[in-house]
Amino acid sequence: MTDTGSAISPAVRARLEAARVARLATVDSKNTPHIIPVCFVFDGSVLYSGIDRKPKRVAAQQLARLKNIQTTPEVAFLVDEYDDDWDRLWYVLVRGKAALVTAEREHKRALARLKAKYPQYAAGLLDEDALIFRITPERVTSWGKV
Amino acid sequence: MTDTGSAISPAVRARLEAARVARLATVDSKNTPHIIPVCFVFDGSVLYSGIDRKPKRVAAQQLARLKNIQTTPEVAFLVDEYDDDWDRLWYVLVRGKAALVTAEREHKRALARLKAKYPQYAAGLLDEDALIFRITPERVTSWGKV
Repeated sequence: MTDTGSAISPAVRARLEAARVARLATVDSKNTPHIIPVCFVFDGSVLYSGIDRKPKRVAAQQLARLKNIQTTPEVAFLVDEYDDDWDRLWYVLVRGKAALVTAEREHKRALARLKAKYPQYAAGLLDEDALIFRITPERVTSWGKV
Repeated sequence: MTDTGSAISPAVRARLEAARVARLATVDSKNTPHIIPVCFVFDGSVLYSGIDRKPKRVAAQQLARLKNIQTTPEVAFLVDEYDDDWDRLWYVLVRGKAALVTAEREHKRALARLKAKYPQYAAGLLDEDALIFRITPERVTSWGKV
């Protein structure tokens, strides 16, 4: 296991760029954790994830992940792949702070990256004014065959 | 999305039984979340996961998941599978409390179930006296094609 502070090695970078899904953990105001799978993009220094048009149970503003990061910005973000051959296991755990992207230019850039990665987003599943949040890595740990 | 309190539907049960991996979120004493992939078994009412002999960075007692559940037993446990065909996406999110299994009989039963599910455990990757923790579901939500 390697703990590199906030520095991201080329191998970890490659994993973050290739992964199609991550799992995001947040905590609510009562200190209770929550996890969901998320689509995301890594731009080489920060991660972006958007509130897309996949069906949701509640309105975007009421989503647990958004309510949680507004009270507790600290999040944990995991990329891994399971394999029944345990010699192939690996994970990358990113801990850092999440915040909504409010600057127009950054929002536009993140939106373009998300659409470039996921054809479904380019095809309309991510609105032009979708809420997008940024995760800034503060501590990156990796384990196994990264 | 379906929120069934602590009741577990047959479809959710089937997903929890079939999944080979889950992601476990815990929080530390500073309210910072942590996630890792875990092997586990579902016995029809509770989930068990053990501290196995896969390489670890620190001694078992120092593992974040164990230290965290001792200060904050509330955990979130996610089973899902990603697919580039988003019509096939689903997840099961279990929120509940985690505790170390201390009763000998329960420990033996959980160990046997874990070994029955994972050949690597039966082959020696899970010690007879491995630490095992139990997650008791309090709220189960599912989304997508469960």
